[in-house]
Amino acid sequence: MTDPVEGAKKLAAYKAVDNHVVNGVIGIGSGSTVVYAVERLAQRVREEGLEVICVPSSFQAKQLIIQHGLKLGDLEMHPELIVTIDGADESDKDLTLIKGGGGCLTQEKILASCAEQFIVIADYRKASNNLGEQWSRGIPIEVIPSAYRVVYQKIEKTLGGKSELRMSGSSKAGPVVTDNGNFILDWKFDGLKNNWREVETQLNMIPGVVENGLFVNMACKAYFGMSDGSVMEQTV
Amino acid sequence: MTDPVEGAKKLAAYKAVDNHVVNGVIGIGSGSTVVYAVERLAQRVREEGLEVICVPSSFQAKQLIIQHGLKLGDLEMHPELIVTIDGADESDKDLTLIKGGGGCLTQEKILASCAEQFIVIADYRKASNNLGEQWSRGIPIEVIPSAYRVVYQKIEKTLGGKSELRMSGSSKAGPVVTDNGNFILDWKFDGLKNNWREVETQLNMIPGVVENGLFVNMACKAYFGMSDGSVMEQTV
Repeated sequence: MTDPVEGAKKLAAYKAVDNHVVNGVIGIGSGSTVVYAVERLAQRVREEGLEVICVPSSFQAKQLIIQHGLKLGDLEMHPELIVTIDGADESDKDLTLIKGGGGCLTQEKILASCAEQFIVIADYRKASNNLGEQWSRGIPIEVIPSAYRVVYQKIEKTLGGKSELRMSGSSKAGPVVTDNGNFILDWKFDGLKNNWREVETQLNMIPGVVENGLFVNMACKAYFGMSDGSVMEQTV
Repeated sequence: MTDPVEGAKKLAAYKAVDNHVVNGVIGIGSGSTVVYAVERLAQRVREEGLEVICVPSSFQAKQLIIQHGLKLGDLEMHPELIVTIDGADESDKDLTLIKGGGGCLTQEKILASCAEQFIVIADYRKASNNLGEQWSRGIPIEVIPSAYRVVYQKIEKTLGGKSELRMSGSSKAGPVVTDNGNFILDWKFDGLKNNWREVETQLNMIPGVVENGLFVNMACKAYFGMSDGSVMEQTV
């Protein structure tokens, strides 16, 4: 593997799986870094006889679990997870995250909230001091389709910035539809903020908002694969 | 009309429509009392030439608007409403409401939040001093289907009480599914509370909760039809 970013994702994912997964129920996030985590999980099942049940956060995660022959579970049968492992679009110095670039933020936040430990895996490009320094596409917000316009008006009025309805594919002929049948707004906020829990709350209290991509006080540890082949660990 | 409850609903609905509706865009709630409001709106359109566009909060509301030959609109074309008129399952001394007995709480809250005035119409059985005194079925909470179990566990852990998944029809063979494709939990809380905004916030911050049926600081006026043929008006 020569691509430094892909190598970094793999390093982070493997280390997190090795350090945190024991026999039990595991939450599986979504995105390109999680692909390596599931790959490593399957290796450990084959090589060490690890016994895990995997609860997916998305259609993509479910397909990965099935393709690797891992045991599939859901939150109705297994409401308590030992650990959830997931990527992030950006992670700041307090491990406050922006997630939802792939549109799976609601299920990802549900899985993160059900785990004893929520572990972030990412490449070096995702680490920042302040949210917004790395991820320029804004904070994803899942909304009830009929309310997308009134929600973005309310966000701009109360919190400033600018929102865009996320469109699908290269032709952008229609909106992105989430696994829950909703739309996604990408909210580009102004300037630096340090009151993310308050922002998360304000967003969720707008009628029509299903969930937003700010993860505050949820992650306990992050693994960032670096371009030099090392892994930077960050804990709160 | 001899049924005192139906008479009371009609009185409240007619008075609210007469006092608050002028030419413009109107939000139409859901439920048995709203039927009378739409009836009165249609009368005023025929008799006075009132010009209104009606934005529905549910499939039921949309059908009522169509059946009465009123103009149908939506929030994408008309994000600002002059007034939204809706019923409530219970309304306390501060006009804090429990809504969602019919399962339309999310769209109802969206419409209420977009209106200059949000007016409640109900019969005398819905007025109370403290929420829970009249409506015994609990506070409806719309949830992402895959998360219903983890959400009710979190509610019981953080807020106490007891939640039930709302089942459909007399055979109760499957869950009620909302217009948004989600499920409904009915949360029976313990004792009296006076911090409803905080409870509303705590519920909405649980990942998997789409919206809840507490409407705090939203209604500006309520009309309660009484059994003696009068209408009790309440303002905050």
